[in-house]
Amino acid sequence: MKCVDYSLYLVLDPDLCGGLDGMVHTARQAVAGGVTIIQLRASAWKKRRWLDAALALKALLAPLGVPLIINDHVDVAMLADADGVHLGQADLPVAKARCLLGADKIVGLSVSNAAQLTDVDGADYLGVGPVYPTRTKKDAAPVLGVEAFSRIAAASSLPVVAIGGIDADNCAPLIAAGAHGVAVVSAICGHDDPRAAARGFRRQRTED
Amino acid sequence: MKCVDYSLYLVLDPDLCGGLDGMVHTARQAVAGGVTIIQLRASAWKKRRWLDAALALKALLAPLGVPLIINDHVDVAMLADADGVHLGQADLPVAKARCLLGADKIVGLSVSNAAQLTDVDGADYLGVGPVYPTRTKKDAAPVLGVEAFSRIAAASSLPVVAIGGIDADNCAPLIAAGAHGVAVVSAICGHDDPRAAARGFRRQRTED
Repeated sequence: MKCVDYSLYLVLDPDLCGGLDGMVHTARQAVAGGVTIIQLRASAWKKRRWLDAALALKALLAPLGVPLIINDHVDVAMLADADGVHLGQADLPVAKARCLLGADKIVGLSVSNAAQLTDVDGADYLGVGPVYPTRTKKDAAPVLGVEAFSRIAAASSLPVVAIGGIDADNCAPLIAAGAHGVAVVSAICGHDDPRAAARGFRRQRTED
Repeated sequence: MKCVDYSLYLVLDPDLCGGLDGMVHTARQAVAGGVTIIQLRASAWKKRRWLDAALALKALLAPLGVPLIINDHVDVAMLADADGVHLGQADLPVAKARCLLGADKIVGLSVSNAAQLTDVDGADYLGVGPVYPTRTKKDAAPVLGVEAFSRIAAASSLPVVAIGGIDADNCAPLIAAGAHGVAVVSAICGHDDPRAAARGFRRQRTED
């Protein structure tokens, strides 16, 4: 198993962050506040912008030791030498992405129900959700709630990151339910002070 | 320069062809009618479907000696061992795609005006258009017309494929204007008899 700290996982959304410059600013501040891993997810972008953003984020994050994960686009991850990819159920299969990226890169897979646990071979971690209602992912599956999340986390042999509608006030039950980490979009990207927002999550964990 | 016959270039659109099975059927018939190269362009699809389609088309086309080009997604092209990719101005840069694909694969680039000819290094061919009004590409640039196409073709040292609103009745002036090939979407994909539709284009060329 790779040594990755999934505890506070930021998904960068260019619309919420204010484009590329806003994403770099948000990432820098969020890492200062305690974010441990960052995913680039710019679903509406064409790939030249993806690559520009991935290269800028890689240059920022690599010296800080914070892994950069690219949503969906394995080609962009390869060109930016990102630390891995995150795949949805309709994206390239995990084994195919692994084939292109090699054994050392991180491959994450989205899981939205227990049935999908039967086909997670080769993934390094699972993104499980949406655990709460979310507005930042338009094609999200039905909301799981804490109990269903807990059952999926218990049934998984892989590290599990909870995602969907998570903020500092509702993350504690997920960690108690077995989440190795919580993934956050709008609670940090849409915040005036991303560092303070990230610190709010760290404080919750410390108080558990 | 690679030895590629661009003369009748079919862009497969899953909506016009009726999904994956329809694309395979259309491709088979169109090649029988004289199509020389095929591009998969399924802009609205997630990548697992892209890969399934690319593998199915590769299995069909490789024994026939017809190159398969993947629009935009270099990762899909690599996994399907396709013959190349076609890139738009906002997609990955040609040099980056080449970096992943290697020297032997075909890399095509879309060009919609003469100014874009200054940055085509590393491409094997150019897709120039839209030469006529088109309904199959929603984000198409302004229509060039035959005269502007002719100037771009004359200024290009690379093979030029005309695209956009082309059918058997309006392709002859483009070939006369220097097109190495014509790219067709709806005139073949949307046709009841793709073989006959492709033959209609071959007949035009013969009569020139």
